[in-house]
Amino acid sequence: MPKISQKGIKMPASPIRKLTPYADKAKKEGKKIYHLNIGQPDIETPEGMLHALKNADFKIWAYTSSEGTASYRNKLAEYYNRLNYNVLPTDILVTNGGSEAITITMQACLNPGEEIIVPEPFYANYNGFACSADVVIKPIMSHIENGFALPSIAEFEKVITEKTKAIAICNPNNPTGYLYSREELEALREICLKYDLYLFSDEAYREFCYDGRDFISPMHLEGLEEHVVVWDTVSKRYSACGARIGCIITKNKVLYQTALKFAQARLSPSLEGQIAGEAAVDTPASYFETVSREYTERRDTLVEGLNKIEGVFCPNPGGAFYVVARLPIDNADVFCQWMLEKFSHDNQTVMMAPATGFYSTPGAGINEVRLAYVLNQDDLKKALICLEKGLAAYPGRTS
Amino acid sequence: MPKISQKGIKMPASPIRKLTPYADKAKKEGKKIYHLNIGQPDIETPEGMLHALKNADFKIWAYTSSEGTASYRNKLAEYYNRLNYNVLPTDILVTNGGSEAITITMQACLNPGEEIIVPEPFYANYNGFACSADVVIKPIMSHIENGFALPSIAEFEKVITEKTKAIAICNPNNPTGYLYSREELEALREICLKYDLYLFSDEAYREFCYDGRDFISPMHLEGLEEHVVVWDTVSKRYSACGARIGCIITKNKVLYQTALKFAQARLSPSLEGQIAGEAAVDTPASYFETVSREYTERRDTLVEGLNKIEGVFCPNPGGAFYVVARLPIDNADVFCQWMLEKFSHDNQTVMMAPATGFYSTPGAGINEVRLAYVLNQDDLKKALICLEKGLAAYPGRTS
Repeated sequence: MPKISQKGIKMPASPIRKLTPYADKAKKEGKKIYHLNIGQPDIETPEGMLHALKNADFKIWAYTSSEGTASYRNKLAEYYNRLNYNVLPTDILVTNGGSEAITITMQACLNPGEEIIVPEPFYANYNGFACSADVVIKPIMSHIENGFALPSIAEFEKVITEKTKAIAICNPNNPTGYLYSREELEALREICLKYDLYLFSDEAYREFCYDGRDFISPMHLEGLEEHVVVWDTVSKRYSACGARIGCIITKNKVLYQTALKFAQARLSPSLEGQIAGEAAVDTPASYFETVSREYTERRDTLVEGLNKIEGVFCPNPGGAFYVVARLPIDNADVFCQWMLEKFSHDNQTVMMAPATGFYSTPGAGINEVRLAYVLNQDDLKKALICLEKGLAAYPGRTS
Repeated sequence: MPKISQKGIKMPASPIRKLTPYADKAKKEGKKIYHLNIGQPDIETPEGMLHALKNADFKIWAYTSSEGTASYRNKLAEYYNRLNYNVLPTDILVTNGGSEAITITMQACLNPGEEIIVPEPFYANYNGFACSADVVIKPIMSHIENGFALPSIAEFEKVITEKTKAIAICNPNNPTGYLYSREELEALREICLKYDLYLFSDEAYREFCYDGRDFISPMHLEGLEEHVVVWDTVSKRYSACGARIGCIITKNKVLYQTALKFAQARLSPSLEGQIAGEAAVDTPASYFETVSREYTERRDTLVEGLNKIEGVFCPNPGGAFYVVARLPIDNADVFCQWMLEKFSHDNQTVMMAPATGFYSTPGAGINEVRLAYVLNQDDLKKALICLEKGLAAYPGRTS
C-alpha cells in the first residue's frame, strides 16, 4: 500500500470535530444539545439572495472567468467603496469561499518555512491552511484580561525574524469577538512598513460590530496599498456559509496577477454563487439592523449570564458572534467532552468549543471555551442554566 | 513592497489564456471567432439538475459536512455502483470541482519533490496543481501516430525512480480524446502493484465514449483497492462546469481520512451544488443518448474534415470531446495567434489551443493543436473552412 504524505500526517484534523462523536452519542441517547460550538448562524439568508439563486437564468451552467464575473466584481467594488475601501473591480479576485482566499494568498506570498505572525487565540483552520501551504504560524499571545486586545508592538518585534513575511488578523475576531481599534491598526501599519510585511486582514465578520463602534480595515490606512490583502466571504455577512463564495482584495498588482495564476488552475468560482452574491450586495440596511440588534441582545444575554456564574469570566467583545470565556475548570477538552458524555440537566446539555484548539502555544487556553451566540435568546438562557449546573457538578472544577 | 513567493513566480499561467488578448482584439475588430479552444460544452445542462437548483428548499444557506452531504454521497454511490465500482458512500469525498479533488489528492499522497508519471500530452492544469502541491510531473511521451495510446510498460519503467509515487491518467483523455482499453488498464495495474504506486484516474469525460466502446476504470480492476483514486466532476457529464462540484473516490481508508483533514480545513463544498448534483444522478438515459449522438456526429465531421485538409493528420479518438491534430505548420503558438491577429475569411476565424501547452517536454507538440468539438455541426463546418483557408495563407506553412 503506497504511503500517504508527511504533510498528510501533519495536517491537523479540525479540533471542533473531535467532539462530534460524543455529540452524536448524546443525541442518540435522546439528549437535547444546545450548539454553542459552531459558527453556523441560525439567521436566515437574505430573501433577495435566495431569490436570485432560484431565479438564475441560464441553460448552460458554465464556467465564469477565473477571477469571477465582471458583473459580480463591479458590484462588490460598489459595496467596498461604500465602506471607503477605494478599490477597483480589478483589485478583487473571487474565490471558493474565504478558505480559498486564504490558501491562495499564503501560497502566493510565502515560501516554504516562512512565517505569519498571528495573535492567538486564532481561527483554528489557519493551522490547516498553513500546513497545506507549508508555511509557519508564529503565534503571539493576546490575553483574556484585556479582552484579547492586540499585543503591543514590542511583542510583535520579539518574534520578527528574517523568515517573517506577514501578519494576519481576524477583525472582528474569531474566536474572541474582539474588534480592533484604529490605534491598533495604526500600530500594525507601522510594523508592516518598518519590516516590509504583508498584512492579511480576515474580515469575515465585518458587518458584526456592536455598540455603535466603527469597523476599521487596513484598507483605510494610507501607504499600505502594496501590503494589504483582505480575505472576505459571504458566509457570515449574509448567513450563506454553504454558498462557498469569498474573495481576495489587494491593490498590489504583482500579487494579484500571481494569485490569479492559482485561480486559473482551478478554473472558476461557482456561477450561481456569484449570481446570488451579486444580489446579496443589495440586501437592505434593515436586514443588518435586525441582525445586529438580535446579535447584540444575544451577546448581552450570554456575557451577562456567563459572568453571573461563579468562577466564570467573560469579556464583552465588540464584534463577531463569539466570546471566549474562562471557566473554573481543570481542562476544557475534558470538560466539553464530559458535558456531552456524562452530564445532562432536564435531559439537556451544551456543546462548546474548547479554546485549546484556537491556541498554538501548548497548554494555553486550557480553562477557556469559545461560545458562538448563534441560538435564539430562549435557547441561550437554557444553555446558560445547563452550563451553570454542569460546572457545579463537574469533578474537575478548580474553584 | 513585500516579495511574492518562489512558487508564485514558478506557477504557470494557463496556456490557453495566453491567446485571450488576441481573441478580444479580434472580436473588437468585428471578427466572428469559432471557439474550438475551450472545454466549455454548448450542450444544455439537464433540466432536472437546473430544476433542483431553482427549487432548493432552504432558508439558511448553511455549510454541509466537509465530506459532502450523506444524501448526495448515497446517491453518488448508487450511480457508481450502476457502473460496477462497488463503492460505499464513505468512499466518496465531495470537492469544489474536480480541481480540488486533484489538489487534495496530490497533497495527501506526495511529499515535496515526489513524482507522478503522466502520459503527455496532458491536461495543462496538472502543472499548476503540481506546482501548488510542490510535486513533480514526469511526462512520458504518447504519440499521434497511434492515436496517443498508452506508452508501453517499458517506457514507464524507464522513468520510475525512488521518487515515483503515482501514475495519473485522464480517461477518456483531455486533450487527445483517447479512450484507454482494458489491456492498457491491466498494464497500469501491473506497474502500480509492482512498484507500489498510486493510480490517479481522472474520469471527467467518462460518459463520452463513442462507437459502442466500453469505458474501463481502474475501479474495475482487482487488487488495486488501496492504490486507486478517482477524480470526478459534474462539469462535463452534465454540462455543469460552473457548479464546481466534483469528488474523490478511494477505498483506501487511510488516504480517505487524510484527504478529509484537508477537506475539513476548507469547511464544505457548496450546499446548492450538491442538491443539484444529487438530482443530476437521475438524469434520464435519453439525455446521454442525445448528447452522445451529437458528439459522435461532431467528432466525425471534425475528424473527417481535418483529414481532408492537405497536410493535416488527426486520429479518430474514442472519447471526450477533443482531438489533437497535426498541422503543416512551423509553430502552433505562432499559428494560433496569427489566426486571431492577422487572418480572417469572410470576417471569421478560428481559435484553437496550441498543443505545446499540453506537453511538458520542450518542443513537443510544436505542430499540433487541440480542438474541442463544442460547437454545432454548422459552426464546425464553417470553422473547418476557416482553418483550411488559414493554413493555405499562413506564412509559416511547412508542406
